[in-house]
Amino acid sequence: MPSNIKVGIVGYGNLGRGVEKAIKQNSDIELVAVFSRRQPSDVAAASGVVHISEVEKYKGEIDVMILCGGSATDLPEQGPELAALFNTVDSFDTHAKIPEYFERVNAAAEKGGNVSVISTGWDPGLFSLNRLLGEAILPEGKEYTFWGKGVSQGHSDAIRRVPGVKNGVQYTIPVESAVERVRGGENPELTTKEKHLRECYVVAEEGADLKRIENEIKEMPNYFADYETTVHFISEDELKQNHSAMPHGGTVLRSGVTGENSTQIIEFGLKLDSNPEFTASVLVAYARAAYKLSKAGQSGAKTVFDIPFGLLSPKSPEQLRKELL
Amino acid sequence: MPSNIKVGIVGYGNLGRGVEKAIKQNSDIELVAVFSRRQPSDVAAASGVVHISEVEKYKGEIDVMILCGGSATDLPEQGPELAALFNTVDSFDTHAKIPEYFERVNAAAEKGGNVSVISTGWDPGLFSLNRLLGEAILPEGKEYTFWGKGVSQGHSDAIRRVPGVKNGVQYTIPVESAVERVRGGENPELTTKEKHLRECYVVAEEGADLKRIENEIKEMPNYFADYETTVHFISEDELKQNHSAMPHGGTVLRSGVTGENSTQIIEFGLKLDSNPEFTASVLVAYARAAYKLSKAGQSGAKTVFDIPFGLLSPKSPEQLRKELL
Repeated sequence: MPSNIKVGIVGYGNLGRGVEKAIKQNSDIELVAVFSRRQPSDVAAASGVVHISEVEKYKGEIDVMILCGGSATDLPEQGPELAALFNTVDSFDTHAKIPEYFERVNAAAEKGGNVSVISTGWDPGLFSLNRLLGEAILPEGKEYTFWGKGVSQGHSDAIRRVPGVKNGVQYTIPVESAVERVRGGENPELTTKEKHLRECYVVAEEGADLKRIENEIKEMPNYFADYETTVHFISEDELKQNHSAMPHGGTVLRSGVTGENSTQIIEFGLKLDSNPEFTASVLVAYARAAYKLSKAGQSGAKTVFDIPFGLLSPKSPEQLRKELL
Repeated sequence: MPSNIKVGIVGYGNLGRGVEKAIKQNSDIELVAVFSRRQPSDVAAASGVVHISEVEKYKGEIDVMILCGGSATDLPEQGPELAALFNTVDSFDTHAKIPEYFERVNAAAEKGGNVSVISTGWDPGLFSLNRLLGEAILPEGKEYTFWGKGVSQGHSDAIRRVPGVKNGVQYTIPVESAVERVRGGENPELTTKEKHLRECYVVAEEGADLKRIENEIKEMPNYFADYETTVHFISEDELKQNHSAMPHGGTVLRSGVTGENSTQIIEFGLKLDSNPEFTASVLVAYARAAYKLSKAGQSGAKTVFDIPFGLLSPKSPEQLRKELL
């Protein structure tokens, strides 16, 4: 019986709570503590909560730290800091800054002799893996990523900044006819806006001018102006009841040609009731991989591209070959 | 400019011809020779053809041998023999015999200091990867593999063994309503026969009793008896014209639950105009990985579970992180 992998959670928002739940589904992984910037007594976690300032004391006691902070301000700081002390896994998702983040985490992890898996989850993460796979197997072809149906945090925030808006949620929805054209092997040229619709559920302040709000949303550059956007005004109660879940998903398609003219289509799709819980489940599987890589003597930053799938499983290579190949 | 990866093809049937075509789509890979048991002058390959008995002379000249023989008799012999001399890639697909085959190829490859990627393609191969991924990320869940629509060689052979049958092709077709139940998160219990239909196109000999042939096919144990099977009698011309392509495909679904009760669905699907050309394209991408692993000093047998996706691409890790993560 191999000993358990001991993990810590850094940050206890939606993602951190998702990791706590995911760990319960994996008997080889054990949660040692949740680390938070808040006063531990204020954090309602089922597990022991420790102030982040105490984290260094856990060196040697925790095999992998699962970083659940945000990409805007938390991870750029915590990622390198904690990579110097522990094996880490994170879901850094600011695509344009990944190369720079990789270098900084890599330097810290190498210095500390730790393994740090950065930018995992589903996009970046599983979707990235499928983009790479499609391109490597079907070099003559086109790649299409569709997102949704799901809540976009950035677009929901943008709605809430419009004067007169009390609350709001935005769903990104793939254009089904565009998906079908790709599945049919047409290989169309499609911009992001031809692939997605935007649907907004808005709670207005009492007495606000609804027509003005709708226009301000629909004409907002970058966020909505180029998209087919619909705006529904609803009550705060309705928003709470029907729009507080965090579903998401999407599809990565590769449409390629081989030989004379054979159309070959690879499709990877996710349909998620809970975006943070799914991302959390991916983080936990990659925490297992980080642990195994570290035990094998490796160090430095890694991405999903560097990690064989076999390391994600608690099963032995023999068992995997027998049961799953 | 890195030098090209020099490969050889062993066996020149549908798969070998597919590999020859796939290599043309990959500028970093160069075909040195096709090896065949037939007289080289009888083999109509675009490339140089060499008798298999000469293969040893190519040691040092070929980086990776792509083995395109069958799993029944060719690969059990050629796999270990060639793994002792070259890095190899194959598509050994007798699921039940994979562990034994792995051990024999592994011993030969380790002795020869070579890397041998066994059992790649799409099933075993990409489908296996997705079965592993689904299980590792969503441990509380169920896995479903649907095959088709596609030609099953084994079932087509079975039809052709029925007295009075001149020729025939069998399509395996997924039951769309079963696929939709899984996509809907129902987590149904489904046997293979509840997931698939069998459609047969049969050319009968002149004067044969069609009713008897249809019954013999439909009642054939293991192959057809438990399935909803349809039999269409057609002319030899019609068979040649409409049923000589080799389409295939299928879907691997993982339906799992996280947290309190969030349904999470992962789906991977293929829709292939040409089954052998697609398998060939997978083999070529894994040949690149075998080459890189060998250059990195590794040896022994590997499966898709052991190989990071990054090695499948001609791009550098930096480029992959920048462009595809």
